[in-house]
Amino acid sequence: MSVYGGIDLGGTKIQALVLGPRNKVLGSARMKTPTSGGPEDVAREMERAMRAAAEDAGIEVSELAGVGAGSPGVVRDGTVTSARNLPGWDGTFALADHLQKALGVPVKIGNDVGVALEAEVRHGAGRRYASLLGVFWGTGVGGGVAIDGERWVGRGGAGEIGHTVVELDGARCTCGRRGCMEAYAGRGAMEAHARKLVDRGQKTDLFKLMRKQDRDRLTSGIWARALEQGDELAEHMIERAVKAIAAAAASAVNLLDVEAVILGGGLGVRLGDPVAKRISKAMRPHLFADDRPPQVEVATLGDLGGAIGASLLVRPQSRARGARRAGARAGSSSA
Amino acid sequence: MSVYGGIDLGGTKIQALVLGPRNKVLGSARMKTPTSGGPEDVAREMERAMRAAAEDAGIEVSELAGVGAGSPGVVRDGTVTSARNLPGWDGTFALADHLQKALGVPVKIGNDVGVALEAEVRHGAGRRYASLLGVFWGTGVGGGVAIDGERWVGRGGAGEIGHTVVELDGARCTCGRRGCMEAYAGRGAMEAHARKLVDRGQKTDLFKLMRKQDRDRLTSGIWARALEQGDELAEHMIERAVKAIAAAAASAVNLLDVEAVILGGGLGVRLGDPVAKRISKAMRPHLFADDRPPQVEVATLGDLGGAIGASLLVRPQSRARGARRAGARAGSSSA
Repeated sequence: MSVYGGIDLGGTKIQALVLGPRNKVLGSARMKTPTSGGPEDVAREMERAMRAAAEDAGIEVSELAGVGAGSPGVVRDGTVTSARNLPGWDGTFALADHLQKALGVPVKIGNDVGVALEAEVRHGAGRRYASLLGVFWGTGVGGGVAIDGERWVGRGGAGEIGHTVVELDGARCTCGRRGCMEAYAGRGAMEAHARKLVDRGQKTDLFKLMRKQDRDRLTSGIWARALEQGDELAEHMIERAVKAIAAAAASAVNLLDVEAVILGGGLGVRLGDPVAKRISKAMRPHLFADDRPPQVEVATLGDLGGAIGASLLVRPQSRARGARRAGARAGSSSA
Repeated sequence: MSVYGGIDLGGTKIQALVLGPRNKVLGSARMKTPTSGGPEDVAREMERAMRAAAEDAGIEVSELAGVGAGSPGVVRDGTVTSARNLPGWDGTFALADHLQKALGVPVKIGNDVGVALEAEVRHGAGRRYASLLGVFWGTGVGGGVAIDGERWVGRGGAGEIGHTVVELDGARCTCGRRGCMEAYAGRGAMEAHARKLVDRGQKTDLFKLMRKQDRDRLTSGIWARALEQGDELAEHMIERAVKAIAAAAASAVNLLDVEAVILGGGLGVRLGDPVAKRISKAMRPHLFADDRPPQVEVATLGDLGGAIGASLLVRPQSRARGARRAGARAGSSSA
């Protein structure tokens, strides 16, 4: 029996899994992502997480047939470049090579959102659909499209649904551009906007909840808690985000007429079905074929989807449409 | 040698072609689209145009192996529903059946923009690209996506790039929705907006040119002429349209990372390379991977693309991805 490792490298946490056949979770470990240092420090924590997951599974790391890791930033030929939200990672770091030496087993890396979408397409909410749009709503908003049951990566960079222009000359996005959906919906952008509104004298319990939970940023859990408490500013900002996500998703559906929209990511999974329903409703006024709206569903693999998807990188059946044809497995590559 | 007929039914004109191998044009005829009456009157003009094209080719209509026709409106099972811009066509009309009886040869019909895109993908500007976005800029703005060299039709309704939301709560579109790209860029919407601005006292030669050319609407040629003359209002409105088209196209490229954008349609073809360059430039600030922008090219089949594409409906190799899998050749079907 071959067992595989999967690591999801996030801005807040590192999730490692040991997976058996049919994605059965044999072992799991979670570490905090370092907030200082550099790529080598992050890689060391990834190694620790993978070793802890192996221990949890009762196996040696050397027994893993391979390890896949999903990373933010630009992933190419086993390297990761400009991983925002990770400490000291402005340049390029040979992450796959580094982890392979540290763990002593084959390592492949892929884009975090890309592998999470792949997991949903093949083993999660997307299994029932021949075509779908994935919207991964977290610090940023990533995503992607699956067509005929396979993820479409284009020339390697497909999936940037968060950078759909929903407002000409609109809000400044963290990417520097104007009017992107992420500028309204990304957790990072929402937090910056909330701080600005508070500076202008608006009231909210968001930051009180943050301090109470000993956090230094507005996590998905804090947004969920604030909504439960009926916090008006939080409600206003989530509504603004829902409208932006819905406009971008409806535009993509108008162009591609996919069967479903799969909502994932930290905020998407945490806010779950109620927010999926809100997005579905907010899409309606923008859908050209509004008599047959696509299903809007929450990612079923939840916050393990990233690590499960990463493990698919080292499994034989891994695949994605598009750049693979040119020999370049976009968004993922071996060390 | 099999020869085929192709008819492009537009809001202004009906273009019929007789095509031989390699899409060689053997005969051609053009009629004005009736502005009054109903679907039967339009169908009669289509028949006349096809007969005139056959005469031009020196053949009998009965020698055609088949005739394909592209129509605006919702095309399903050989019928056309709600063809705006065509007289008295609010309901459903069995166009394929009607034409087949009139012409005595097999007839298939498809969506006008869909067949024009198919023509560009297989025989025009799209031939060199494995993936592309088509933007057909005319009275409305239609389009579509080709992936791995095949048009993607989704559940049958893909391609509505004109109904990409580029402005939340923005201008009212002719489709009734708000903030659609077409509300800024469609020739219909532009004309309505120009009339409003003139009513408010703004100056333009657009309507003077219209009367001089004995037209009752602002055709692509009139817009081109006004731009050549340096008409400020025309320039302002084309710039506004270019920005909207560019935002929608860039958003689609961010999501799909296609290799090229093919610009077709009456206005796209008439304004040609200079406007393709403007759209390309206006896309740049919105492209996530701005170091490798897609090519932006004008449709090479020009205003014959619609009729050529329509003829492909009755040729053996006709195909499109998506709904075809479910047995429903979306956007086209036999009588």
